[in-house]
Amino acid sequence: MDIGIIGYGYWGPNLSRNFSESPRCSVVAISDPKRERLAQAKIKHPGAKFYDDYGAMLSDCSVDAVAIATPVSSHYQIALDCLRAGKHVFLEKPMAETEDQCEELIREAARRNLVLMVDHTFIYTGAVRKIKEVIDRGDIGDLLYYDSVRVNLGLFQHDVNVLWDLAVHDLSIMDYFFGLPVSVSAIGVSHLEGLPEDMAYLTCLFQSGAIAHIHASWMSPVKIRKTLIGGSKQMIAYDDLEPSEKIKVYDRGVSLSSSSWIDYRSGDMWCPKLDSAEALKSEAKHFIDCVHGVAHPLSDGESGLRVVRVLHAANKSLSQKGKMISI
Amino acid sequence: MDIGIIGYGYWGPNLSRNFSESPRCSVVAISDPKRERLAQAKIKHPGAKFYDDYGAMLSDCSVDAVAIATPVSSHYQIALDCLRAGKHVFLEKPMAETEDQCEELIREAARRNLVLMVDHTFIYTGAVRKIKEVIDRGDIGDLLYYDSVRVNLGLFQHDVNVLWDLAVHDLSIMDYFFGLPVSVSAIGVSHLEGLPEDMAYLTCLFQSGAIAHIHASWMSPVKIRKTLIGGSKQMIAYDDLEPSEKIKVYDRGVSLSSSSWIDYRSGDMWCPKLDSAEALKSEAKHFIDCVHGVAHPLSDGESGLRVVRVLHAANKSLSQKGKMISI
Amino acid sequence: MDIGIIGYGYWGPNLSRNFSESPRCSVVAISDPKRERLAQAKIKHPGAKFYDDYGAMLSDCSVDAVAIATPVSSHYQIALDCLRAGKHVFLEKPMAETEDQCEELIREAARRNLVLMVDHTFIYTGAVRKIKEVIDRGDIGDLLYYDSVRVNLGLFQHDVNVLWDLAVHDLSIMDYFFGLPVSVSAIGVSHLEGLPEDMAYLTCLFQSGAIAHIHASWMSPVKIRKTLIGGSKQMIAYDDLEPSEKIKVYDRGVSLSSSSWIDYRSGDMWCPKLDSAEALKSEAKHFIDCVHGVAHPLSDGESGLRVVRVLHAANKSLSQKGKMISI
Amino acid sequence: MDIGIIGYGYWGPNLSRNFSESPRCSVVAISDPKRERLAQAKIKHPGAKFYDDYGAMLSDCSVDAVAIATPVSSHYQIALDCLRAGKHVFLEKPMAETEDQCEELIREAARRNLVLMVDHTFIYTGAVRKIKEVIDRGDIGDLLYYDSVRVNLGLFQHDVNVLWDLAVHDLSIMDYFFGLPVSVSAIGVSHLEGLPEDMAYLTCLFQSGAIAHIHASWMSPVKIRKTLIGGSKQMIAYDDLEPSEKIKVYDRGVSLSSSSWIDYRSGDMWCPKLDSAEALKSEAKHFIDCVHGVAHPLSDGESGLRVVRVLHAANKSLSQKGKMISI
Repeated sequence: MDIGIIGYGYWGPNLSRNFSESPRCSVVAISDPKRERLAQAKIKHPGAKFYDDYGAMLSDCSVDAVAIATPVSSHYQIALDCLRAGKHVFLEKPMAETEDQCEELIREAARRNLVLMVDHTFIYTGAVRKIKEVIDRGDIGDLLYYDSVRVNLGLFQHDVNVLWDLAVHDLSIMDYFFGLPVSVSAIGVSHLEGLPEDMAYLTCLFQSGAIAHIHASWMSPVKIRKTLIGGSKQMIAYDDLEPSEKIKVYDRGVSLSSSSWIDYRSGDMWCPKLDSAEALKSEAKHFIDCVHGVAHPLSDGESGLRVVRVLHAANKSLSQKGKMISI
Repeated sequence: MDIGIIGYGYWGPNLSRNFSESPRCSVVAISDPKRERLAQAKIKHPGAKFYDDYGAMLSDCSVDAVAIATPVSSHYQIALDCLRAGKHVFLEKPMAETEDQCEELIREAARRNLVLMVDHTFIYTGAVRKIKEVIDRGDIGDLLYYDSVRVNLGLFQHDVNVLWDLAVHDLSIMDYFFGLPVSVSAIGVSHLEGLPEDMAYLTCLFQSGAIAHIHASWMSPVKIRKTLIGGSKQMIAYDDLEPSEKIKVYDRGVSLSSSSWIDYRSGDMWCPKLDSAEALKSEAKHFIDCVHGVAHPLSDGESGLRVVRVLHAANKSLSQKGKMISI
Repeated sequence: MDIGIIGYGYWGPNLSRNFSESPRCSVVAISDPKRERLAQAKIKHPGAKFYDDYGAMLSDCSVDAVAIATPVSSHYQIALDCLRAGKHVFLEKPMAETEDQCEELIREAARRNLVLMVDHTFIYTGAVRKIKEVIDRGDIGDLLYYDSVRVNLGLFQHDVNVLWDLAVHDLSIMDYFFGLPVSVSAIGVSHLEGLPEDMAYLTCLFQSGAIAHIHASWMSPVKIRKTLIGGSKQMIAYDDLEPSEKIKVYDRGVSLSSSSWIDYRSGDMWCPKLDSAEALKSEAKHFIDCVHGVAHPLSDGESGLRVVRVLHAANKSLSQKGKMISI
Repeated sequence: MDIGIIGYGYWGPNLSRNFSESPRCSVVAISDPKRERLAQAKIKHPGAKFYDDYGAMLSDCSVDAVAIATPVSSHYQIALDCLRAGKHVFLEKPMAETEDQCEELIREAARRNLVLMVDHTFIYTGAVRKIKEVIDRGDIGDLLYYDSVRVNLGLFQHDVNVLWDLAVHDLSIMDYFFGLPVSVSAIGVSHLEGLPEDMAYLTCLFQSGAIAHIHASWMSPVKIRKTLIGGSKQMIAYDDLEPSEKIKVYDRGVSLSSSSWIDYRSGDMWCPKLDSAEALKSEAKHFIDCVHGVAHPLSDGESGLRVVRVLHAANKSLSQKGKMISI
């Protein structure tokens, strides 16, 4: 499978490295409008062709698929052009700026029978997959809450707010665990005039009664990536910055019985072994499988759309001081 | 100074121990309706008198002051009775159930020239006082945010929700740092029918543009007490469970200049030495000073009232799914 | 059972509190040469009798047992006097200054059919008992090593070196797990002329081939209490300062097979629930059981002697720059 | 400057990457006896020449310098051949198997006026350089001790023991801070017949009275890299696995005064900002400067020799159960 990379900024080099390391895939073309980036790309991928315009790449070069790592505002147009050129598409998150754009990309891919996969990287990590496994086994009981703190210092984005930059990771994880919420509330502040919100709190309510909450910030002196997932039987603490004990499953919890009595259990904690493979490597492999028709994307266009739907409701709520918005 | 303790449940023994250890104060009377609690009190304070009814204590016994550690719903009536009996009052937080009750207690104490102090324990800790010192020195610049996670497993309260039980600590700290917010939003859930909210998220907006957010929960598998305080120059991380490094002051921060440029500084961190005295010991000493007329309560009735005002707005917002409530 | 406490300095108050809280035991007498200590004792135990001389206590007062918490140099004489007066003895660690003294106390107790128990507190903690349980179940396989770091800042002792003050805890734990080593080496330094070693490294070799090593220091800027216990199948990390996750059992380990191949396993970690009762409470209960003849001391005179034997060999090695001393 | 890389196993790729990223240096040749390694090297350095024999590389190819990352046992012969061929040498640690070999390499380099630098990577890290800066400023007073725990699970080496693999890092750091010790003691065990020691404890005594101790192990279930450095005024805790707070400088310490009084100070802790550049990048730059004659190697042949001297004494002591060996 021959793949072309569109966008060689922060994330593009990771994509091209992982695709090039697969024995079933070759990175044959890379496009980016910036010359210095193409120069760097040439050092790492001397055998590829280079373009400052992705349109030229599409017309000139016979790639089977493209991986798009450009700013969000350009996702829709580039992905659409690629699909229309008959290419399978691996698209950076968030999928696009509007729900309409997402839907059009989904329709276009379906019509042409092409793979459209959104880069929800976290659901390909050993940690998130292990949590999913624990949930699916029924160990933790009913999902009661998802609480995440995802904060650090900068980098400030000038085009999107902190929810689109950081909370999007939690939204893709939550989509994987819970599906779509029914309503969303967000409160945020910007500390620099004219720039988007740099810290925000997002709350999602689910049909089941479960609640999710995300604290996203570029204004924290320390980097934190901590998630608590509460179930009626067990609870999980997930710290993505822990080198070797990312996931802790606690028997210790509150047992919610049908009577009015609460039973506090306090039992063992279990820290499962995780698959330590690089998420993007697994994800690249999965995309290649999808292109070969032996798998359907775990993070398909529909999940990309659901995440954008929540982000849009969040933006609406932000502008109304946290008003609860139905989805 | 002779003091009587009303309520000898969870907190009362701490109050009586700290007051009894002061050389300027004697615990001469203890009242509690439960016999087994009085039995325990007798072991620790063999020289005191014991009452199953605080009214009997007030009429029988010539105490100068009382410390009240009973359920919130009883605070108003007991404190009022004590003030009317001419006793100085040290009152557990939250001060009372309603703002009207708080105001009446404040008026009654003022009219009779009695001390009314609310037990906002945290503002007497070495950690919170050190943060206040750093803020007052101007080191951290303008206060931009206060973010606190105060979660653990149980104990579920049947009479008040988790904000009244846990967030009240943050509200007293915030009152000490920031004063009263202008609006409040809270979202919470109860996982047991008929019981109050066991997890909740509270957001406060301030006149200055600062934002505060508190995650309070009885449903977390792990106990967390972490607060981030962001300023325009420095930021503080405060972890109350750290045995020896509770407070870290980060030079590393975002410098917000008037231009549109953001300057990321990343400098040293400083971990100041803290006064390790038990907060309640300092607080007892302060109350005795106030009774002797040489100090005014740092946590006076007005601050107790402000905290109750926010808690009430929070309850209102909770019942309206997070609607922003003006104060 | 009536007990008398001899020595009311740092540890005596803990002993008297725990014995007095048992329903099967009364603290009826307390002796200490210092008046201010007796004054404090009177506040906590108003019903007891007080003596500035333990001899007077022994002759005047009909106690069944004594708990001795005095400096090491006085252990032998006091314990001997108590045994000769027909009292059961609960004796602070280290048991005595010399092996001969330990042996004489053991003989005296045996001759008079009295209980002689040494206060090896740690083996009564939930953590150490859980480790013992895991070892005894055979889960970790053969014991390969015990490595402990037990360091903090001060308090400097003027009468004993840091091994007698801190490493003694590890020696009592190791005695519980492994029994007596066959040889001992210790290297230490004193940073103040005329004072005993304030930091030292102790190595013990066992018949089985197992090795133990203890780093003890009063010169560390941070307090550390970390022990690694390696087995041929599993390994345990024990951090006594962790509030809720003191013990972690790792499947992850090196499998030592008979062939020359090494198999690196890397599996789950398990953090068992621990009994959170205060060790001294369990220990007091156990001593009372022993006096009542329904148990034999887990930490009897023999184990006290074994620990002193290792400490003596360590001192000998210290004075010979780490020469390996056979036991 | 044209450089050739000899050995493309575990460390060689890091060397070639860092040298190739310098604008003042080109990696023009790579040699390794294993074909699959050369294949990987070709992907990363398509412009270089490749050799399965370093001798061929030396005769064929006009490099100015070589970087040698082969097993210890081959260091001496390869380095000697390279020096004789007139190449500047960057040599992996430990420098060689014997002191004689080290001395001969030093003489050979001196005679030919060539740079001979040993890859003591750690002394080029921001952390170690900051500690050196703090020591040199006199802030911590006299150096009293260096205590390091450097343990993890495997990888077992079949050719050298764990001191040569792990403690060598501490020895190079200690050499940078303290210089050469006067005597050395080491105790270790091997848990697999015929293989070298997999855990060992090394003690070094210095002329000044300072003591150093290193716990090195391939048998720990957890990875630890913690060093305590004690001075008469301040103490430093250095945790190399901490992502952002590697170094903590404690005012809290014991003040050792000339009188017999000990003054416990307990003051602030300070966590300085560190240079976060990759150590090997700084080191490569430094080597290039040395080759250009504008610097002398911080880790020259003499320091390489001193480290080998201590390792040899340690091996001698290991074989005599910890006997103290003079250097």
